[in-house]
Amino acid sequence: MPHIQLNNDLPGIRGLMAFNPQTAGPMGDLANALLRETEGLSPAERELIATYVSYLNDCFYCHHSHGEIACYYFNGDRDLVDQVRKDYQHAPISAKLKSLLQIAGKVQQGGKKVTPEDIEFARKEGATDKDIHDTVLIAASFCMFNRYVDGLAANTPADLSTYPPRARQIAEKGYGNHIFTTSQPVSEKV
Amino acid sequence: MPHIQLNNDLPGIRGLMAFNPQTAGPMGDLANALLRETEGLSPAERELIATYVSYLNDCFYCHHSHGEIACYYFNGDRDLVDQVRKDYQHAPISAKLKSLLQIAGKVQQGGKKVTPEDIEFARKEGATDKDIHDTVLIAASFCMFNRYVDGLAANTPADLSTYPPRARQIAEKGYGNHIFTTSQPVSEKV
Repeated sequence: MPHIQLNNDLPGIRGLMAFNPQTAGPMGDLANALLRETEGLSPAERELIATYVSYLNDCFYCHHSHGEIACYYFNGDRDLVDQVRKDYQHAPISAKLKSLLQIAGKVQQGGKKVTPEDIEFARKEGATDKDIHDTVLIAASFCMFNRYVDGLAANTPADLSTYPPRARQIAEKGYGNHIFTTSQPVSEKV
Repeated sequence: MPHIQLNNDLPGIRGLMAFNPQTAGPMGDLANALLRETEGLSPAERELIATYVSYLNDCFYCHHSHGEIACYYFNGDRDLVDQVRKDYQHAPISAKLKSLLQIAGKVQQGGKKVTPEDIEFARKEGATDKDIHDTVLIAASFCMFNRYVDGLAANTPADLSTYPPRARQIAEKGYGNHIFTTSQPVSEKV
């Protein structure tokens, strides 16, 4: 049960965003700008970074929500996504993405944990300044999203079959404000 | 020296935001919606929460930047702001704000650290659902802003006399996108 009275039964961050539309708008815009940008990292890679950081932060709602979006992009390869969560070093992903996940894991611990060696390693694997920037900000933003969800004890569906339909909707339509409102048809609710 | 080539010499988060305007817009909008809202908590109280969390995250640039904005609101009472950083329990602030700083400190550690007892305690001190929501999101967002700044090793002026002029500008004009661009007059740069 959420720590505050949300006056809606939407799951996860959506319930919080419907409670406070003033901050929901900028947060949705930030998610779109960070996770759906196609310059450099692909949306699939961005969602893997989001999933990994949310998993490190032990945010059930976020790591399943974003894991399912990544899964959608990877044609339903749920094993790949799960391996990135638990053991990315041995996952079938690029060496560049592995080097960026290393940076993301440091950011999850704290900004100062990122070392010049981490950056140098990523550059050697082909990461650009923009890739490094986006990785740090995706990881940092999920340290916000995860804390927002768990800090207010948002509604978290335990039934994993409810996540894929929403993931598909986001992958196809984006993180527009429409997903955070209560005005959508009941059929679209997770 | 920043981990990436920013192509500007703006301090702190402003240099990062000028590097990537696509995400700067929503981040500035989020800061305005969270820190300048006047329903419930005052902007002064919001800046104290931001300062405290940034101090816990050891983000020099952020805790001095927001500490100076709080100081501006409190008519230059820098001792008060410093006491909130280091020992808020004995600072001359309301019992309600102390109970919210307790929640903010938990969020800084992780969302799940917030307990029903923390929430109950804040309610007893007069906190509303909106106050609790805003406190959690301010604390969570500074876990993002702080990691963004330190994760990319943003330029951080060591000279504390450079912070008050910028703080005054933000207190009077807000966190508009204008503060993140390089097009402003040199005289306005910190």
